[in-house]
Amino acid sequence: MTLKKRSLSGIKPTGTPHLGNYLGMIKPAIKMQETHQTFYFIADYHALTSIREPESLKEHSYDLTATFASLGMDFEEHAFFRQSDIPEVTELTWFLACLTSKGLMERAHAFKDAQSKGQDVNMGLFSYPILMAADILIYDSHVVPVGKDQKQHLEITRDLALRFNHLYGETLVVPEAIIEDQVAVIPGLDGQKMSKSYNNVIPLFAPEKQLRKAIMKIETDSKTVEEVKDPESCNVFQLFQCFADQSAQQDLAEQYRAGGMGYGTAKQICFEAIRDELKDASEHYHQIRGDRAHLEGILEGGKDKARKVARDVVDRVRNKVGL
Amino acid sequence: MTLKKRSLSGIKPTGTPHLGNYLGMIKPAIKMQETHQTFYFIADYHALTSIREPESLKEHSYDLTATFASLGMDFEEHAFFRQSDIPEVTELTWFLACLTSKGLMERAHAFKDAQSKGQDVNMGLFSYPILMAADILIYDSHVVPVGKDQKQHLEITRDLALRFNHLYGETLVVPEAIIEDQVAVIPGLDGQKMSKSYNNVIPLFAPEKQLRKAIMKIETDSKTVEEVKDPESCNVFQLFQCFADQSAQQDLAEQYRAGGMGYGTAKQICFEAIRDELKDASEHYHQIRGDRAHLEGILEGGKDKARKVARDVVDRVRNKVGL
Repeated sequence: MTLKKRSLSGIKPTGTPHLGNYLGMIKPAIKMQETHQTFYFIADYHALTSIREPESLKEHSYDLTATFASLGMDFEEHAFFRQSDIPEVTELTWFLACLTSKGLMERAHAFKDAQSKGQDVNMGLFSYPILMAADILIYDSHVVPVGKDQKQHLEITRDLALRFNHLYGETLVVPEAIIEDQVAVIPGLDGQKMSKSYNNVIPLFAPEKQLRKAIMKIETDSKTVEEVKDPESCNVFQLFQCFADQSAQQDLAEQYRAGGMGYGTAKQICFEAIRDELKDASEHYHQIRGDRAHLEGILEGGKDKARKVARDVVDRVRNKVGL
Repeated sequence: MTLKKRSLSGIKPTGTPHLGNYLGMIKPAIKMQETHQTFYFIADYHALTSIREPESLKEHSYDLTATFASLGMDFEEHAFFRQSDIPEVTELTWFLACLTSKGLMERAHAFKDAQSKGQDVNMGLFSYPILMAADILIYDSHVVPVGKDQKQHLEITRDLALRFNHLYGETLVVPEAIIEDQVAVIPGLDGQKMSKSYNNVIPLFAPEKQLRKAIMKIETDSKTVEEVKDPESCNVFQLFQCFADQSAQQDLAEQYRAGGMGYGTAKQICFEAIRDELKDASEHYHQIRGDRAHLEGILEGGKDKARKVARDVVDRVRNKVGL
């Protein structure tokens, strides 16, 4: 029995994880195991609002599972599972939908963004904040780490929990946000935020040669070897910072400022830092990635843990509404 | 094994059944057993879009179960169950939501009605046509008897089934509507359509005295006993027609037209016709209505039948979308 607070996060299985995912979400997630009981789910129901490729949905779910396994997630203490292995969450979504005013959904950021881009909004996307609320509430989550962009959606979750409790009596745990406003933007190859949609990503577990080749492609300015350079405005240095300790960062920064070091050298140093941090995990990843039975075993274990909590919450809710 | 087509209908557990429900829906439903394999569900998920009274939801579900039992539904051949006993329907709702454009929902009648009445529309009500589609599609229903007001919602169901099949390959049975455009409007005590919201209903299984008293209250014009009367424009005669054969109808109509018969007499004749049709069922109803274990047994049986079909459909769908 753990007395730690339960933290919940979901990850969309939309592509092979890249360094941006690793630094922005996966690494902090692994770290969070030290202080919380963590529940991580692969948001495959959610992915269906935009993905219509059955095979890639499956494969990306395995990618994520193997990634968390190889980076050292403790599947005994924590739960890692597929959203769709707990279909109860769609039932809770219905109960919450009956308490959610349509007007509130019209004001939700994700919808407004999609609408402003002229996208044809489907009802999955439109009502996604309700599914997100159900995802959180069904696991009696105490805390939810969210980026600034998800702050409003967590507010909606809290409102729905409070509203349910007000109407039917104390039933749902009202979660707290852990706002991650310190999240560094990880630059991609072109200096924009690393993102699959910008086609500028460096895969997390690329073979060494491929990793090095990718890093060598990072865009820099065209200063010569001799010229003095500015580490702060350099994409290579930005990425290096995420993988180096303070003293290594200072060393490289000094070389930038001294002149006489070309970007090729900086890139090599950056490559080595990334390779060293990820080497063992990468090997482990490639060992297990093809072993579906092993990965399914991990997901089965997570499902059992998650279901125990979810079943209890849904039974409580059903009882309260009169079913 | 039956080779009959499967017909599906839902009934909202919103009150004790009255004569309007009986004539408009329940009686045709019982009749339909002769030609179809029928699936009837108590729409308790749906009821939650407007009902926040846990106890009345339970009691009205038992009312409906006892009503169908006492009117002779064959629970061996057909399925009678609670919508919420098959939570898989909420999962199918999510899959379909991801294929439903928000604009389509904005054009759905039920939503437009609610909106035009200035109601605060919740997301359950707004997305109700998707739940309705899931209700139908999850049982591989071949036909759905619908009133004119539900025609559009059935079109939405068909569109969603076709769309799913188009995107993922043949998966869902595309249902046909049986449009009930012949449904007589059953007048209530005041001559308006009999409806709980008009407070003009005659309960289906009222004790004899209470039934007679209610019928005596039906509004008529103020013609004297001697005067000639018009059966066609008389609320009492309208109701009588629903319970009498052709020759009895002709007899009474002649008495109307001959003069010399007061409305009290017509009401007594009407009362007797209703009482005679419902006497046995009413006795049966009152015998079993308090026997929760018996009613739960009926619902359990229906659940087992319904789940067998639903599980198969949802598994098919999950497989197709990549879960």
